Amino acid sequence: MIRIALDAMGGDHAPKEIISGAMLARSSMELDITLIGDKTAIEEELKIQKSPFMFPVVHTTEVVAMNDHPSEVLRTKKDASIFVATRLVAEGRCDAVVSAGSTGAQLAAAIFILGRIKGIERPGIATPIPQVNGKLAMMCDGGAVSDCKPNNLLEFAQMSSAYCQNVMNIDNPRIALLNIGEEPEKGSELTQATNKLMSSKPDLNFIGNIEGKDVLRGHADAIITDGFTGNVILKAIEGIASDVMGLVKKAAKTSLTSKMGGLLLLPTIGKIRKLMDYSEYGGAPLLGVNGVSIICHGRSNGKAISSAIRQAVNCCNAQLISKITTQAR
Amino acid sequence: MIRIALDAMGGDHAPKEIISGAMLARSSMELDITLIGDKTAIEEELKIQKSPFMFPVVHTTEVVAMNDHPSEVLRTKKDASIFVATRLVAEGRCDAVVSAGSTGAQLAAAIFILGRIKGIERPGIATPIPQVNGKLAMMCDGGAVSDCKPNNLLEFAQMSSAYCQNVMNIDNPRIALLNIGEEPEKGSELTQATNKLMSSKPDLNFIGNIEGKDVLRGHADAIITDGFTGNVILKAIEGIASDVMGLVKKAAKTSLTSKMGGLLLLPTIGKIRKLMDYSEYGGAPLLGVNGVSIICHGRSNGKAISSAIRQAVNCCNAQLISKITTQAR
Repeated sequence: MIRIALDAMGGDHAPKEIISGAMLARSSMELDITLIGDKTAIEEELKIQKSPFMFPVVHTTEVVAMNDHPSEVLRTKKDASIFVATRLVAEGRCDAVVSAGSTGAQLAAAIFILGRIKGIERPGIATPIPQVNGKLAMMCDGGAVSDCKPNNLLEFAQMSSAYCQNVMNIDNPRIALLNIGEEPEKGSELTQATNKLMSSKPDLNFIGNIEGKDVLRGHADAIITDGFTGNVILKAIEGIASDVMGLVKKAAKTSLTSKMGGLLLLPTIGKIRKLMDYSEYGGAPLLGVNGVSIICHGRSNGKAISSAIRQAVNCCNAQLISKITTQAR
Repeated sequence: MIRIALDAMGGDHAPKEIISGAMLARSSMELDITLIGDKTAIEEELKIQKSPFMFPVVHTTEVVAMNDHPSEVLRTKKDASIFVATRLVAEGRCDAVVSAGSTGAQLAAAIFILGRIKGIERPGIATPIPQVNGKLAMMCDGGAVSDCKPNNLLEFAQMSSAYCQNVMNIDNPRIALLNIGEEPEKGSELTQATNKLMSSKPDLNFIGNIEGKDVLRGHADAIITDGFTGNVILKAIEGIASDVMGLVKKAAKTSLTSKMGGLLLLPTIGKIRKLMDYSEYGGAPLLGVNGVSIICHGRSNGKAISSAIRQAVNCCNAQLISKITTQAR
């Protein structure tokens, strides 16, 4: 049975939504979930939500604040829930860690406590992006490595490919490089060199460059980019989708006819907002570290946490870490 | 009277929409417009559109194709309309060039024919982005310089500030740096160093970093970034806004009530699509070259061309080039 270390204190709606996610996951899957965090707060929340499950709790007192510096906090708050949770995986007492807390702290925990997979220079975050065709694509890196070399991007591509194939069951996943122009010779020094490097790897189903306009259009299963561009784009998608939907809602209030139209469309608009809200899609696996670590959006609700837990289970069942380890040799 | 050199052959809808733009501009402003391109095609189009104006035409035979390599084409197609148009400005026979053709060719023309302003290392494209509050912001660089150093970004900031102040009449324009995190110490090597550099310039109203989610939210008058990130983001905005609106339209057809709602909302949706379509906002001035060169979106219609011409006139009247030249000393 897969054993999940769940950071009960991380996220905007912790511990409430985290615990509701644990209950949701537990009610649909056979698995062990250990809750890491303040015992009193957790037990109170379990009581409020009338949990039928008895989750084991590992008590911790320290909490990483969003403005804590990730690598400092690893020294100063050794007992914060994310570090304790990650240590449970490093010690083999759990199989995967799931958190909606500070991404930086989770990244630092994974790199320094789990360690990197041998042969992988820099781990990357594979963030899911909903596509207009209803499927999911991954963007890697979503923000772990701001300054990348071509080899970092190649590793992101190979690890994302392994993830898509083994965890998402996609045959021969299509890997694209985010660039400013589709032609191989276009782009920055980084993307030009990376395009050449990726093209030279027959194991990789590299379909070439894609542009910013295509990030939601289902052209690729994994979109590879440096963590700076990836993070800017992911946040832009979130912001723009919400801004455009906001404009639609606002516009629907300008005249009587549009008001009526807006009312009739309201449920549909809600559905689209949901489709575009990547917090709905569980979490982002951190690829390249020696253990499964799923990074959830800070705004995650119970459903998102539950999907992230399912994703963690899938990573474990697919033996993702040993697949990447073999590949990286 | 301001004299505009208008590339009649550049753009997806040339020469039709270019000429319609020239007519539109000429009917609302006192100015001289010279059309550069194939004389026969231009005169035929003027006849079709029943132009009441007699535009002087400079006949050229060569046309830059979208897949031509910008710096090569400058040697191989010396007589292409964009090069001839730019030469008219360099020779003092026109005051500004406006084109909707290949951005790369226009950039090459400006850099090699007009030359850079003394003290400016790399010119940048200041692309307008519509904001949800109905105002405009500029993103600089929109794609001229893929690999930037901190000093390039500082120059973009200073030139954008001069443009906002003198051409857009914005007092004390707010300059922001696009980054992954708002804190000064966050980001890539480039953005960390640039944040420091910009903060040290008292003449610049530098308001700090903004994130991808905020690019449409009216927080800044100019958003500064490298040309790679800028181009990816601009194309993403265009793509995502159109994708989300497409989803709304599609969703409006799923049930009878939503169909009715969609019909009632249709005019409003059209308005939003227009608000988000940056081709509606005229063009992007190329900042840092020794002459006014306005880059229009390839899909520009007559209205967009006319706005770009007005923008060129405003740049000339505001003496933008001499303002930037003084600033760069």
